[in-house]
Amino acid sequence: MREADGPVRVTAAADQAAVRGAHLGLVLRHLRDHGPRTRARLAAELGLSKATATSLVVELEQRGLVRRGAPARGSVGRPGATVELDGPRVCGIGAEINVDHVATSAVDLAGAVVVEDRRGLDSRRLGPDGVLDELTGMLRHVLDEVAAQDTIPAGITVGVAGLVDTTHDVITVAPNLGWRELPAAARLRDRLGVDAPTIRLDNEATLAAVAEADSADPERRDMLVIYGEVGVGGGIVSDGRPLRGRHGWAAEFGHILVDPQGRPCGCGRRGCWETVIGLHALLDAATDPDDRLRDPSLTLEERLEGIVSRAGLGDTRTLTALETVGTGIGAGAATLVNVLDPEVLVLSGYFAPLEPFLRESVEKRLDADVVAPRLGGTHVAFSTLGPVAAVRGGAAVSLAPVLTDPTLVPRRAGAETGGSR
Amino acid sequence: MREADGPVRVTAAADQAAVRGAHLGLVLRHLRDHGPRTRARLAAELGLSKATATSLVVELEQRGLVRRGAPARGSVGRPGATVELDGPRVCGIGAEINVDHVATSAVDLAGAVVVEDRRGLDSRRLGPDGVLDELTGMLRHVLDEVAAQDTIPAGITVGVAGLVDTTHDVITVAPNLGWRELPAAARLRDRLGVDAPTIRLDNEATLAAVAEADSADPERRDMLVIYGEVGVGGGIVSDGRPLRGRHGWAAEFGHILVDPQGRPCGCGRRGCWETVIGLHALLDAATDPDDRLRDPSLTLEERLEGIVSRAGLGDTRTLTALETVGTGIGAGAATLVNVLDPEVLVLSGYFAPLEPFLRESVEKRLDADVVAPRLGGTHVAFSTLGPVAAVRGGAAVSLAPVLTDPTLVPRRAGAETGGSR
Repeated sequence: MREADGPVRVTAAADQAAVRGAHLGLVLRHLRDHGPRTRARLAAELGLSKATATSLVVELEQRGLVRRGAPARGSVGRPGATVELDGPRVCGIGAEINVDHVATSAVDLAGAVVVEDRRGLDSRRLGPDGVLDELTGMLRHVLDEVAAQDTIPAGITVGVAGLVDTTHDVITVAPNLGWRELPAAARLRDRLGVDAPTIRLDNEATLAAVAEADSADPERRDMLVIYGEVGVGGGIVSDGRPLRGRHGWAAEFGHILVDPQGRPCGCGRRGCWETVIGLHALLDAATDPDDRLRDPSLTLEERLEGIVSRAGLGDTRTLTALETVGTGIGAGAATLVNVLDPEVLVLSGYFAPLEPFLRESVEKRLDADVVAPRLGGTHVAFSTLGPVAAVRGGAAVSLAPVLTDPTLVPRRAGAETGGSR
Repeated sequence: MREADGPVRVTAAADQAAVRGAHLGLVLRHLRDHGPRTRARLAAELGLSKATATSLVVELEQRGLVRRGAPARGSVGRPGATVELDGPRVCGIGAEINVDHVATSAVDLAGAVVVEDRRGLDSRRLGPDGVLDELTGMLRHVLDEVAAQDTIPAGITVGVAGLVDTTHDVITVAPNLGWRELPAAARLRDRLGVDAPTIRLDNEATLAAVAEADSADPERRDMLVIYGEVGVGGGIVSDGRPLRGRHGWAAEFGHILVDPQGRPCGCGRRGCWETVIGLHALLDAATDPDDRLRDPSLTLEERLEGIVSRAGLGDTRTLTALETVGTGIGAGAATLVNVLDPEVLVLSGYFAPLEPFLRESVEKRLDADVVAPRLGGTHVAFSTLGPVAAVRGGAAVSLAPVLTDPTLVPRRAGAETGGSR
């Protein structure tokens, strides 16, 4: 997640060290968001003296987080050496526990993917211990790969399809997994051992939203992500920061009420948004019970390819079903836009590949239902990240503390300390 | 600022000043939130050296923002003099433009109300110029009173019942006033003259939410306010900050969809929350068309007294209508809780005096419809601020910059500058 540039905020714990750490973070984030540049340019853009900028760059070099890049072109006088991120020094690790798969990803400081994996499984049948065993094996592999490249893992963030207590790192209730009150972080820690990096849990759709927002694009500082699979989740980014709510349970979009007379929902209520726009609502409307697209052995990707293919051929039933889902997306999204006034509304998960058949009906209904003029200025985007959104967001969240305080990464052995100017 | 031990660190002058301003604000907010205390205690609680704390207190004294208070009791050794806010030095001014009234308030640094006024009028009939003329007269009176007490006005924030473009300080559209694209701040500035403090516009329900959150209560850092009058608005406070959205149009709660088959709304749509829980929905259900409580000459307070009186006497029709409204509040609020996961849900405006007859049905429906267990930990509160919520919030927003950077308030004439430790 990109932090705000601008003046460093000083908090109650403020002392020289904290200010120093914040300044180091400011330089690191600036290099990540705006690319390599000279020390002189860094100083000018961040309002620092040249001496301070140089001192900060030297310390970041000692910590292995930046390195010298190519000389700047077009500069007046002698070309200045540029500074750029030294990506492989540190990485964040993301993981995901979902109904039909588990996944992992390690992404370094420069955004390069170190290692990434995804395995299909039946989480309900395997149960918590079986799933956590499988994920532990995958995480061991990630940690081995990362260690082999001499990269420091900053932490592990595990996205879960359910409500997560982010204070205690416990899965509170995950209806589609059938789990509740599961201390999944502690169980993973027991399996991985005391040497493993810090393990945190988060909601997978929140992490997918973080991945969408993890760019320097200022529009993405106020953003909603609606994440459709069998269930519907989402994430909120407000003023550049993920909005998790008081207990980490915000953005439970699937269960907002859209029709009191609507269909029963898996949660026991009636007329939840999920019953209108979840994957099963589309399949029920577009196919008969014996249709091959309902074959449980198909992957989500195969099912969607079938839908796209039929829609592309002009199949009326498929197109009508997609229009109904698109209108349903627009109706619920209008409520979210009225509540949150985002700049961008990102449709992710199974919605993304259906963009050509959903966009028009989504926008039409949004335009009718948002109370502010012209959709309140919100525009609709479809995710391009695909199924890796949640693990990439997890990796970004794991890496975030380093971008706030680079002193979390130790100096390299042999690096001089003190007095550097 | 304490000098670093060891190697001298060079920081740009601008950074030094910004850090100094932030530290001054930290001390000021700490005194406001936690009350008078000695310099030694301030230093300990804020992690500052005693020399730094003393230097900051001296500067705040020179700026007239703090003063010496009574000696601390129970301290070890000789009693230390305490420091406390010097309230009357500076104030924030709030104002409100609503359908049937305009209002003003000036609140000083210590939270004391300097002057407050409210006048009934018919904004639709008077039109923008008539209403702004009336408000100008009231603001002149406020500025005169404030000047007579030698208090500096930090700014004026005007709450409006409608969508406000907070970047350009323009009323985008205010359906219940019948206004659109009105540069109200500029028009007030023209009337008040160049000497007037900065004038900003904001949504009145957002300001009411700020007033609810303007306490040191940590629960109120994640809060929703639902503000019921003829229309229904609201405000969101997330992690201690008002969430205004990208364009300032967040928290338009009145027009979230609760029933696609519901009643037509004034906005041209159908089934908006406002049609279920707005004041007219209650009156329509509780009274016949010729009932004296519908007499247009009654004030809101008189109408509510009538409702409370009938409910207190056990009138079945009134009680049923209140239960229906309470259930409707719970149904829409559940969507908001699922989206935002607040700690507290505050019911304000006309809901507040009806607490004894609304609470049970609101909580019952919330409990049924919030997907997280036990209401997701959210609890329901009813506002105790009454009709001054919006103007008090406006005053708080006007004063906020001083609490972030107290150097905005000049030193008093004769106060020594520089070198004070």
